[in-house]
Amino acid sequence: MATTKRFLVAIIGVGGVGKCFLQQLHALATRRSSPKLDLVYISTSKKSIYNKDYSPIEIEGVAEVLARSSQAPPPTDELVDYLAAAPAPVVLVDNTSSQDIADSYPLFLSRGVNIITPNKKAFSGSYALWDAIFSAAETSGAKVFHESSVGAGLPVISTLKDLIETGDKVNRIEGVFSGTMSFLFNSFAPTEGSGGKWSDEVRRAKELGYTEPDPRDDLNGLDVARKLTILARLAGLPVASPTSFPVQSLIPKELESCASGEEFLDKLPQFDKQMEQTKNEAEAEGKVVRFVGSIDIPSKTVKVGLEKFDRGHPIASLKGSDNIISFYTDRYGSNPLIVQGAGAGGEVTAMGVTSDLLKTIV
Amino acid sequence: MATTKRFLVAIIGVGGVGKCFLQQLHALATRRSSPKLDLVYISTSKKSIYNKDYSPIEIEGVAEVLARSSQAPPPTDELVDYLAAAPAPVVLVDNTSSQDIADSYPLFLSRGVNIITPNKKAFSGSYALWDAIFSAAETSGAKVFHESSVGAGLPVISTLKDLIETGDKVNRIEGVFSGTMSFLFNSFAPTEGSGGKWSDEVRRAKELGYTEPDPRDDLNGLDVARKLTILARLAGLPVASPTSFPVQSLIPKELESCASGEEFLDKLPQFDKQMEQTKNEAEAEGKVVRFVGSIDIPSKTVKVGLEKFDRGHPIASLKGSDNIISFYTDRYGSNPLIVQGAGAGGEVTAMGVTSDLLKTIV
Repeated sequence: MATTKRFLVAIIGVGGVGKCFLQQLHALATRRSSPKLDLVYISTSKKSIYNKDYSPIEIEGVAEVLARSSQAPPPTDELVDYLAAAPAPVVLVDNTSSQDIADSYPLFLSRGVNIITPNKKAFSGSYALWDAIFSAAETSGAKVFHESSVGAGLPVISTLKDLIETGDKVNRIEGVFSGTMSFLFNSFAPTEGSGGKWSDEVRRAKELGYTEPDPRDDLNGLDVARKLTILARLAGLPVASPTSFPVQSLIPKELESCASGEEFLDKLPQFDKQMEQTKNEAEAEGKVVRFVGSIDIPSKTVKVGLEKFDRGHPIASLKGSDNIISFYTDRYGSNPLIVQGAGAGGEVTAMGVTSDLLKTIV
Repeated sequence: MATTKRFLVAIIGVGGVGKCFLQQLHALATRRSSPKLDLVYISTSKKSIYNKDYSPIEIEGVAEVLARSSQAPPPTDELVDYLAAAPAPVVLVDNTSSQDIADSYPLFLSRGVNIITPNKKAFSGSYALWDAIFSAAETSGAKVFHESSVGAGLPVISTLKDLIETGDKVNRIEGVFSGTMSFLFNSFAPTEGSGGKWSDEVRRAKELGYTEPDPRDDLNGLDVARKLTILARLAGLPVASPTSFPVQSLIPKELESCASGEEFLDKLPQFDKQMEQTKNEAEAEGKVVRFVGSIDIPSKTVKVGLEKFDRGHPIASLKGSDNIISFYTDRYGSNPLIVQGAGAGGEVTAMGVTSDLLKTIV
């Protein structure tokens, strides 16, 4: 195209994903001449930088400048007004996991501000919020993309959307949706060899940084349930919430009330027998146990928990902390369309955000 | 958006993929109100339908109407003029595998006509044509999408582009790119059991419709070489042609001159010993043999041929006629991003074309 257009970017959140995104945005803005990508707003929960006249903020080093800023972020209403009145199209990139910010998406979208985010909260909370978000987008024409809310940078949501929008019938979605659970079970019940004790593997995963600070935040299955909620809704099932279907928690009842993750890890060995038994039952059938989520669309069944798989099954032979997502559809028949790879980490999560940005600015 | 826009579709080719695409287009045009998708041109090599005033052609049943048409297709120059003068944006969907039509893409693109196609010829022929296509698109702003030229509807090209455009460094691409080769080797050298004789498997694959009418058109490796050429060029290697790198043909030298595919199949058993030996060598190492293509970007090496894989490797445990494509990148580290599933067939190939259409009309 002959004329150079501007496309304005506003960012909330400068944590792990946010910092990686800033690097990718800087590289993209340097490389792309049309549209010209201008950063016009950036904030954390405490600080912000923006110019009333929408003059661009230097992207390189902005996280450090922001840390020294003395300007508090404006109230949401004021931010919406500022972005909606911008002299060029705007995208708000939410790199937080804040429910409050997620709750404000309908407001931004209704005023024509596009939204991109890896934040699962907006799409896996109440169905009313989901509905409000997509109704607002539909009405105003603003776009909302959230590829990284499932499988980080893996092409999961875009693939599901393509299947549906081109008229395929998606019958079943199944996979390993948690890097933590993947790592734990690939070590605890490997396809070759015998693996370690369950409590040892959980402690090791935590020490290697594969779990949340309190491993129970992974073992309760809620993270997987949130991702399943998002995919099920995209596939047309009006799932009410991530707690409205069966989710198997791997936290022994007796340890739910532990005061800390450390106390939990100390007491977990007392419950190894149960997991060992589950592993042995699978082995007796020549199988391995894995923590999977599945959506069966015709029967409207969503569930999350332990299942057994043949050693040759792609879900069984997963490596490291990889995710795998299988789409069973009418067109693809008995062999599913499979997407596999790292489903967590700052770089790959930011990649999903940046690829959404590329789709927004076309 | 408030106003309803038109987006005009012109189609060349009404074969297997073309017929499936027409069904998908009909469903999409019925469902989508904005932009309004209007078919304004359709042709085979012998017949055409179009109205000088760009009034829409009924999509449902158009293949049958076209078969009865007495109007020859216009010369390319006239078609370009017709489409370039249209009152709304136009996309030309080339559902043929014609080199002549591929050669005309730069002309269409330079006049602002978008192009979508599963036709490998345009992107895997001379580098001069590749260059002319993307230069014309760059200058005019017209889009050119060809997802289905590799792996049919699997998200292969879009994933590679996303990796590159978001700034990842792609180091290696490896996979099984031919449904025929996949089926042959999954049967000939299965991960469990011993498989059949090579010549029997080739005959069976032909009888089941998995090969071209003359199986040598699959066994020469050129189809895989074309796909590798496309991916290598997208990854930045200026590969001159699909014959400019090592491609292992599975046609014994002595049978290259057979007059027919039938004669070839009759004589193939005389050469089973060689393939049996290759299989046994792999088995002695606990491996299986597969026909793969690989691109190593730092060393600028592209090659196609037989390689050995551990039985637990995703390439070894592929099923049926599935394709698998692994992207090794800086961000994804030692475990690649993998896309897997059916890589041939009318429905899934048309799906890739339709998803490109969705990207074009945004």
